[in-house]
Amino acid sequence: MAPTPTRDDKFSFGLWTIGYNGSDPFGGPTRPQLDVVEAVTKLAELGAYGLTFHDNDLFEFGSTDTERQKQIDRLKQAMADTGIVVPMVTTNLFSAPVFKDGGFTSNDRGVRRYALRKVMRQIDLGAELGAETLVMWGGREGAEYDSSKDIQSALARYRESVNLLAQYVTDKGYGIRFAIEPKPNEPRGDILLPTLGHALAFVETLDKPELFGVNPEVGHEQMAGLNFAAGIAQALDAGKLFHIDLNGQRSIKYDQDLVFGHGDLQNAFALVDLLENGGPGGGQAYTGPRHFDYKPSRTEDISGVWDSAAANMRTYLLLKERAAAFRADPEVQEVLRTAQVAELSTPTLGAGESHDDLLADRSAFEEFDTDAYFGGKGFGFVRLQQLALEHLLGAR
Amino acid sequence: MAPTPTRDDKFSFGLWTIGYNGSDPFGGPTRPQLDVVEAVTKLAELGAYGLTFHDNDLFEFGSTDTERQKQIDRLKQAMADTGIVVPMVTTNLFSAPVFKDGGFTSNDRGVRRYALRKVMRQIDLGAELGAETLVMWGGREGAEYDSSKDIQSALARYRESVNLLAQYVTDKGYGIRFAIEPKPNEPRGDILLPTLGHALAFVETLDKPELFGVNPEVGHEQMAGLNFAAGIAQALDAGKLFHIDLNGQRSIKYDQDLVFGHGDLQNAFALVDLLENGGPGGGQAYTGPRHFDYKPSRTEDISGVWDSAAANMRTYLLLKERAAAFRADPEVQEVLRTAQVAELSTPTLGAGESHDDLLADRSAFEEFDTDAYFGGKGFGFVRLQQLALEHLLGAR
Amino acid sequence: MAPTPTRDDKFSFGLWTIGYNGSDPFGGPTRPQLDVVEAVTKLAELGAYGLTFHDNDLFEFGSTDTERQKQIDRLKQAMADTGIVVPMVTTNLFSAPVFKDGGFTSNDRGVRRYALRKVMRQIDLGAELGAETLVMWGGREGAEYDSSKDIQSALARYRESVNLLAQYVTDKGYGIRFAIEPKPNEPRGDILLPTLGHALAFVETLDKPELFGVNPEVGHEQMAGLNFAAGIAQALDAGKLFHIDLNGQRSIKYDQDLVFGHGDLQNAFALVDLLENGGPGGGQAYTGPRHFDYKPSRTEDISGVWDSAAANMRTYLLLKERAAAFRADPEVQEVLRTAQVAELSTPTLGAGESHDDLLADRSAFEEFDTDAYFGGKGFGFVRLQQLALEHLLGAR
Amino acid sequence: MAPTPTRDDKFSFGLWTIGYNGSDPFGGPTRPQLDVVEAVTKLAELGAYGLTFHDNDLFEFGSTDTERQKQIDRLKQAMADTGIVVPMVTTNLFSAPVFKDGGFTSNDRGVRRYALRKVMRQIDLGAELGAETLVMWGGREGAEYDSSKDIQSALARYRESVNLLAQYVTDKGYGIRFAIEPKPNEPRGDILLPTLGHALAFVETLDKPELFGVNPEVGHEQMAGLNFAAGIAQALDAGKLFHIDLNGQRSIKYDQDLVFGHGDLQNAFALVDLLENGGPGGGQAYTGPRHFDYKPSRTEDISGVWDSAAANMRTYLLLKERAAAFRADPEVQEVLRTAQVAELSTPTLGAGESHDDLLADRSAFEEFDTDAYFGGKGFGFVRLQQLALEHLLGAR
Repeated sequence: MAPTPTRDDKFSFGLWTIGYNGSDPFGGPTRPQLDVVEAVTKLAELGAYGLTFHDNDLFEFGSTDTERQKQIDRLKQAMADTGIVVPMVTTNLFSAPVFKDGGFTSNDRGVRRYALRKVMRQIDLGAELGAETLVMWGGREGAEYDSSKDIQSALARYRESVNLLAQYVTDKGYGIRFAIEPKPNEPRGDILLPTLGHALAFVETLDKPELFGVNPEVGHEQMAGLNFAAGIAQALDAGKLFHIDLNGQRSIKYDQDLVFGHGDLQNAFALVDLLENGGPGGGQAYTGPRHFDYKPSRTEDISGVWDSAAANMRTYLLLKERAAAFRADPEVQEVLRTAQVAELSTPTLGAGESHDDLLADRSAFEEFDTDAYFGGKGFGFVRLQQLALEHLLGAR
Repeated sequence: MAPTPTRDDKFSFGLWTIGYNGSDPFGGPTRPQLDVVEAVTKLAELGAYGLTFHDNDLFEFGSTDTERQKQIDRLKQAMADTGIVVPMVTTNLFSAPVFKDGGFTSNDRGVRRYALRKVMRQIDLGAELGAETLVMWGGREGAEYDSSKDIQSALARYRESVNLLAQYVTDKGYGIRFAIEPKPNEPRGDILLPTLGHALAFVETLDKPELFGVNPEVGHEQMAGLNFAAGIAQALDAGKLFHIDLNGQRSIKYDQDLVFGHGDLQNAFALVDLLENGGPGGGQAYTGPRHFDYKPSRTEDISGVWDSAAANMRTYLLLKERAAAFRADPEVQEVLRTAQVAELSTPTLGAGESHDDLLADRSAFEEFDTDAYFGGKGFGFVRLQQLALEHLLGAR
Repeated sequence: MAPTPTRDDKFSFGLWTIGYNGSDPFGGPTRPQLDVVEAVTKLAELGAYGLTFHDNDLFEFGSTDTERQKQIDRLKQAMADTGIVVPMVTTNLFSAPVFKDGGFTSNDRGVRRYALRKVMRQIDLGAELGAETLVMWGGREGAEYDSSKDIQSALARYRESVNLLAQYVTDKGYGIRFAIEPKPNEPRGDILLPTLGHALAFVETLDKPELFGVNPEVGHEQMAGLNFAAGIAQALDAGKLFHIDLNGQRSIKYDQDLVFGHGDLQNAFALVDLLENGGPGGGQAYTGPRHFDYKPSRTEDISGVWDSAAANMRTYLLLKERAAAFRADPEVQEVLRTAQVAELSTPTLGAGESHDDLLADRSAFEEFDTDAYFGGKGFGFVRLQQLALEHLLGAR
Repeated sequence: MAPTPTRDDKFSFGLWTIGYNGSDPFGGPTRPQLDVVEAVTKLAELGAYGLTFHDNDLFEFGSTDTERQKQIDRLKQAMADTGIVVPMVTTNLFSAPVFKDGGFTSNDRGVRRYALRKVMRQIDLGAELGAETLVMWGGREGAEYDSSKDIQSALARYRESVNLLAQYVTDKGYGIRFAIEPKPNEPRGDILLPTLGHALAFVETLDKPELFGVNPEVGHEQMAGLNFAAGIAQALDAGKLFHIDLNGQRSIKYDQDLVFGHGDLQNAFALVDLLENGGPGGGQAYTGPRHFDYKPSRTEDISGVWDSAAANMRTYLLLKERAAAFRADPEVQEVLRTAQVAELSTPTLGAGESHDDLLADRSAFEEFDTDAYFGGKGFGFVRLQQLALEHLLGAR
């Protein structure tokens, strides 16, 4: 009943997602390694349009140049065979022991320099493959103990590093932009730039802020108890939603990386509504890849991997349908009017109205009937929410 | 044994803190109203230097001009009698029914205009009393339901409002700056600008960003599971720590507003170390008021109120002593060196080093010994943390 | 499209729910008081069958006997006029200043004795009105500070109190059982018996455990990040689900008391499936009242109150329909078989098999092929979850 | 300055703690494997008295009998050489792929039987080594998706399994008791018996409840936002604190397994006070091993491992000293009296007082002055908390 995904939907997957072998803090792999050619081929069959990867998803840390090139060539051939594109690449600065205190912000300068080089190499590869975005998830940039990390210096080093990278892509003429992926914690006790707000603020301190945006992940923001759709709206407001990671998370706990929609379903509905329709005010929508950053559960074998990959796309498309029906429903439109949702796009001040004009308007203050809001002037938000829920349930 | 607070410590309290009557979602007041003159007098005795207030802490919502002025005059006299200053004021846009959907971002335009007027009036009063900061806590600016609030429009209206206010203080020649106080939720299900990161990012979208900073509150950031001291470091890095709210919170739950230090004690230690000593790297420190925004527990009578007020200041001063001893300890300094904490202030690139220079440095990548980080090159962070803990415990 | 509630659905509401006036920690009432007769009349119209109440929902704390009786008489008349029953009553031991350190476990013995008397009086009234359950939510039984409460003594006093009450209802011949309602925190920093597990354990230490069960609330367990449906299953396993409080909560934060289904929708689906169908194993189901303990949002006027009341019931019935369709779907049944969900009801040991028999079974250990679980023997849980989701969405 | 640990302190460590190689969800090992003989030798030097282990900490999953026996013999020799004892053993039912859906409650019956056999084998080994406790942490007993696990059947299977094990140790004459270790989530989305309350309740449904208690872990309860010391008090009240896992956790997030005291320091203080002094009421204290279940941070090399092991013990002993000084302080004793903390051990009813007697006591209700609690009868809890804090800080 759900529509079938097509390339126009711009669904992409990380190689590390379908390739997740099941390792977790309390157990080893439950699945063998997935080959990149099989990954690309199967994703194409399922209707995805893109693959993304960390350098060490494709070739192991410490690979020789020959081993590395062999894997790159295999990926290129698979891309050519299937039409799958690589819209985004990213660099693994978190798995190897050398990064145990971070990459760009390790207390060890040698590590910081090594990290920069590793990212530059991945940028070169990304540019070669046509990637438009470099995602930076600084999962090891952080600390467990407050005294062990000078956060202000860490921010300075992070800034120094990404300024250099921005200069690099500029000088090289690469068409690549950067998207910072925030996360509050795990694997570090606290991670630098813990939410999309912190990342947006950091971007404004950079030399070339126009090259930097964010890559928010559903579960990462929800690990801080934050409303993901609301955060995305702020990123859109700032013109900084360069990329997005879709998945599912159930409450504040370890990073679950469930299938999109298998977490907070109502917020997923609001998110798809926002991305596709621009929110209740019809504001700016998102046109980039719909990228899934999830993990097929450790209980599954390879058939479960592909079932779960398909589930991400089906759920997205189902929510898109539901959101369209919600917007089209005349009763919803009436309740939205009662709730004055669209009214919020009307400026608070009249055209050309100054603070003196506002002060002179007695109807705004001296004569404003604040008592009417007690026992009256209800907004009807609960009715609206129930309508949204019933559309989500397909019950209208 | 703890040092006695003096005015030089710049401790300030909200009138609503010591004046909290004990009301909560499940019970009414347990204490009668505290008069402002008694509040000012007692705070001065205890060693505080400042009082802050919402308009409706001093006079009730809906007061006549006469009632309002009488309370203002009583406050002024108490200030004159005691030397207590008013470094900050703020506006109550959350208690009255008119603000049930917010102030600056209510879906109801009349409310938005009323809110602006109410804030302008409080700015006038603040300026008259010598306040340097207007704090804006938008506790009702938010929503319970995703479809009931167009977040992008809400941000636009918030921006419109504070831009007008910035123009107002500029035109009036007031020496007032604005500090946004973030909070993730409560009383709304989700609040706009939920963390200090979101607020810092929002500031950069304003017409006069130089007039705007943040007023982070310990418990508010911790309600999102975030590291408060780390967040403060980012605010300092951005030059935006205009004011601070000190209190205590125990884990992710409702807003507890405990006495400073009665929550996450280790992070409080790191915070005081940062504010007083500028962090491990000796970066920028904070020179503004040490403002307590807490609630004396509902179980207490007035003697408990004053005991709790004093406790805030004693704990701050104790932690300041402990932090100084920690920094002075030669063993700590040695372990900090091993942990390379100060090294992080060294730029990753050499002076004038370009990306091409870095690419040409084979020691940075091709010859860098990543294997040495397996089973070696430990950072000694746990030993450092244990030293910090033992200094905190007064055990060294 | 959703079925209409009838009395057979056994929907009940707390008088304090529809009667919530909008007060919260940061604002006063936004709605006038709801009269009990209006409440009963309207609930009956909407299809509910029951009303529940705290003593001080019906008459104010400190009412004279005459005032109290007048309100009781008005309620009785409304019950007679509408057919609404009172299946449960409860006692307010949390709002008045006297209970600021709790009721049964206040450090003040006079308060403890007063609390017992207050509950006994409410039990008498409950029995008179035909209530079968006394709910005990000990919202003030707790502490903010570890040293201020001797938890072991608090448990001893709680036990002493409820043992006395059990003796009281037994001696009086009342047909009343007790249901403890757990909550982790708010309004106290930590509350005694914080989860349904703690309450179930406590029941086993009582003199008459058969008279005691639990009244779990959706949001209260979710405030501790716990899976509500899983907790209910344990309560059913113990034969202790005496009553239930249905509502909605979004992640770990203050107690939201949203409409049922307006929180974690997928867990609400699992819950209704469990209550109505006994879970995947067809175990014991729940036959008591479907009781809503929610708060109509503060943004609403009286029409929003009744819309929200109706929404609770509609959503429950919609989820009941969806759960039935899920169970009936042949594809679901096939995937359940693959996932071996029903297999878990098969005993691990054969009939009469002893530990010696098990030790002698080489197929169980020495010859058991553990390697087959690597890369194989996937459980198909993600596919099953996706089917559940699609049924929830009404998309199959 | 901190006292030196001795064997009388009964400090024990899991072999998996000091042996943790640094693997986490985003990175591989940073340290080589620690040999058991080195572990035992070093622990003895540091002042510990005991080692605990999972079967597969000592020998790998799938070891031959010869490999297994070799490791057992090496451990025995090290024990003999050092005097280190093995007070507890536990079984790894979570790392191997075969346990991907759990052990005792896997949907796959073959796995359940295999799990039982694996535990029986480890019980035999534990008995041989003199262990008094078998800890059962069912980390994989749970689910990510509600429909994939029949919780009631899972509880039935768990019960069946542990009943068999209880019969086994009884028939064998082993002096072993069982301690269930609860955890809310991670590695499963939700884990069966998520808190110590749920585990205590479950114990009461077993055939031989006297053989079963709990092994609560600081961080596990705090991952649900629960007060650990309060939970331990309930376990003591039930006579079920058979073992304890000490470590540190900072707020609700992934399982951090920090050094004891490196998390919520104030609750750690309350915990040590309770274990050593029996709490404010002088109730039952704990006499078993002080067992550390922590992970040396991944940033550390082997010297950091041993520093962190020592830190656990030092902090415990420091807190023990602080708690003793707190109890001995006359000002504390006075404030405890004001707060009526000890009064809570006084029964609410008089000796032999019945419910009829209570009803007849007009001073208890009709004449009880509830008004006195408004504006008066403060408990002084904040002052008490501040005294506790200052003792913790060594500032008195």
